[in-house]
Amino acid sequence: MKPLQAKENKHHIQAERLHQRIMALAAIGRIGTTGVCRLALSPEDRAGVELVKGWMEEAGMTARIDPFGNLIGVYKGRDKQAPVLMLGSHIDSQPYGGRFDGVIGVLGAIEAVQTMAERGIMSEMDIEVVAFCDEEGCRFNKGLFGARGMTGKLEEGELARADKNGVTRREALLQFGCDPAEYDSYSFEAGRIRAFLELHIEQGPVLEAKNEPIGIVSGISGPVWWTVEMTGFAGHAGSVPMAMRQDAMVGCAKVIVALDELARREPAAPTVGTVGSVAVFPDSRNIIPEKVSFTVDFRDIELERRNKLEQELRGIIEQVSLEHGLAYTIREDTNSEPRYCADWLKTILHREAAGMGLAPPELMSGPFHDSLTMSYVCDYSMIFVRCEEGISHNPREYAAPEDIALGAELLYRAAVQIARGRSEAG
Amino acid sequence: MKPLQAKENKHHIQAERLHQRIMALAAIGRIGTTGVCRLALSPEDRAGVELVKGWMEEAGMTARIDPFGNLIGVYKGRDKQAPVLMLGSHIDSQPYGGRFDGVIGVLGAIEAVQTMAERGIMSEMDIEVVAFCDEEGCRFNKGLFGARGMTGKLEEGELARADKNGVTRREALLQFGCDPAEYDSYSFEAGRIRAFLELHIEQGPVLEAKNEPIGIVSGISGPVWWTVEMTGFAGHAGSVPMAMRQDAMVGCAKVIVALDELARREPAAPTVGTVGSVAVFPDSRNIIPEKVSFTVDFRDIELERRNKLEQELRGIIEQVSLEHGLAYTIREDTNSEPRYCADWLKTILHREAAGMGLAPPELMSGPFHDSLTMSYVCDYSMIFVRCEEGISHNPREYAAPEDIALGAELLYRAAVQIARGRSEAG
Repeated sequence: MKPLQAKENKHHIQAERLHQRIMALAAIGRIGTTGVCRLALSPEDRAGVELVKGWMEEAGMTARIDPFGNLIGVYKGRDKQAPVLMLGSHIDSQPYGGRFDGVIGVLGAIEAVQTMAERGIMSEMDIEVVAFCDEEGCRFNKGLFGARGMTGKLEEGELARADKNGVTRREALLQFGCDPAEYDSYSFEAGRIRAFLELHIEQGPVLEAKNEPIGIVSGISGPVWWTVEMTGFAGHAGSVPMAMRQDAMVGCAKVIVALDELARREPAAPTVGTVGSVAVFPDSRNIIPEKVSFTVDFRDIELERRNKLEQELRGIIEQVSLEHGLAYTIREDTNSEPRYCADWLKTILHREAAGMGLAPPELMSGPFHDSLTMSYVCDYSMIFVRCEEGISHNPREYAAPEDIALGAELLYRAAVQIARGRSEAG
Repeated sequence: MKPLQAKENKHHIQAERLHQRIMALAAIGRIGTTGVCRLALSPEDRAGVELVKGWMEEAGMTARIDPFGNLIGVYKGRDKQAPVLMLGSHIDSQPYGGRFDGVIGVLGAIEAVQTMAERGIMSEMDIEVVAFCDEEGCRFNKGLFGARGMTGKLEEGELARADKNGVTRREALLQFGCDPAEYDSYSFEAGRIRAFLELHIEQGPVLEAKNEPIGIVSGISGPVWWTVEMTGFAGHAGSVPMAMRQDAMVGCAKVIVALDELARREPAAPTVGTVGSVAVFPDSRNIIPEKVSFTVDFRDIELERRNKLEQELRGIIEQVSLEHGLAYTIREDTNSEPRYCADWLKTILHREAAGMGLAPPELMSGPFHDSLTMSYVCDYSMIFVRCEEGISHNPREYAAPEDIALGAELLYRAAVQIARGRSEAG
């Protein structure tokens, strides 16, 4: 453990306390030395929630678990009627996850509030710190459950979704101590949240490459997700002349190369395109592939550019299919629009960072976060913390305590500004 | 069943008898209506061998099963010392195979010999009809066993190879009634075979496209088989900018496109290149592929051209890897040289076909056959029969009885020429 004293002197928050809490929470559901498996609504998740609830109370908040499994701590403000300031993230993890994803946003928020309490800073409005339930979505194959539940965005049939052991979300919620019967009488009050701030590891390599400990998020670039299936005709790899082939893998390969080129066309743009999954049938070394199914993930913070490139890609798929005698289908699995962070919140973050002697760069978030759901009900912003090699969703995930402390300190300082009602100040 | 009478008048062979035998053998190991599963050395294979042995005896041959599982029928010739004329193929099948692959070469050869016997044609040399054991290789993952055994080409450890149920080839041979203990005292006598002729379905679409019922094979283009592994670095599909990516799937796609272009470069050449199998890791839609493993199958009847293209492809893999920051390995799994059919045999085939009013085109064989092994110990040639849509290794495999009859008739006529000692005649 590196000594944190040197930098801690500059902080209002207690970096060492924050670090110890992160390490203590990492012990619940630990895998190996640095991994974490704390699946949403599991006993480990519940143990984590209990631990964090204790820290909320220690920080001066009253804490409860809502019917959606969200842990909510409230730091009372002067005006009970004023729209609240919400801070938070999630503490559930991927099955083979790391210690920092989500966690620093919840524990950083608690640290911010505890620092305010310890420094006797009164808030104009209530401050709510939330550990949202099931952000990851890996257990029931649909994420952001707690945030969507809280904001009235659950979909038909969600409670019937089963995990791989056949346990439905309804059963898991009941085991967790939450009663879905309460959903009918629940409604989200529009306008009750003034702003949502989320601290999170970057989960990408941009800050590391720029040698910057923290960054300010410009927006979350929702992806468009496709499943493309190209179908040709199988044949013996030795006996079908090239001119007679309908090779679905060659078609797929041409689309992959084209997608890569489209995404790179404007070097300064944050456009990204990925084919992460490919399935070949019959997948035999001496049989020409008859059918290839592959995913497309396309993201851009500018929806217009993304739409234009998406149309171009559709044209390329059509063209390649024609050229190689293939049939194809494109199934759109997801189509999220980019969600921009509020300018006034970014202004506060930049100004407070400057006060800390920092000039954090702005960057797009490729991954989604609880912020994505919150963006539909309030202004939001995010602080990113540099993470090693951009690795996340993996036990190797690592963010330096010094960097996390800088992020939490900025969260604290921004929260204080908002809590003091200086939100709109230029 | 279409009536065969019309064409049969032109034939010396009995097309209807041949057809009935093909259908009778198809009943052993039948799947559905038209499929066959007669795995090498299985009880079904043994039942097939017994049935075919009976037909050999009916045709005037003495028949035995050798220690390698080959069924060998001998039609005695005038000169016991003269190198023999060998005809044949195999009757084992793929697990989800068809009725014609291999079978027509064995039953066509029996029909040819039976026709000679019935017409009182005496052969100068012995004629041996062979149903080779385990041509397919799917059970023990290594084919051409019987042909390699007969010609002294077995490799170390072959008998210990196990099928997916853990049964070794040694055990399977013993159950089949063959004793591997006899291999030590076995030796192949070089020069004992004058020529080998094999009738086979094309397993490709060339004859159908040319509207030709039969073709004469120019040679078997042995493949070069690689397994290529490209390794980059995984990352979140949303958070790693294009310029920082090491995407192994993009690298693989560029190699697939390049291979396709290389193989098409000379439109008149029979070069073929195929990537039939692709495995992506971690194979998740929002993770940049870290590792992709794929097969390369490259064939050409001209070894020099194949070698040149192979070198170009190596250069492209190097170049693409450099461009995308990938490490790579190329494992050569197989490297077979093309094996050409003997000119004097092709001359006989063309002349006899002309006598039947046909002008069969020459074509390359992409798939290997028992002929490939035999090519190392004697002159050989092959007759291909058109098959529907080029489909093989599939229950949908189909060759018309009329086309098979033409192929068997040509086999008969060529065999008679060789049997009469007119082999070298111009």
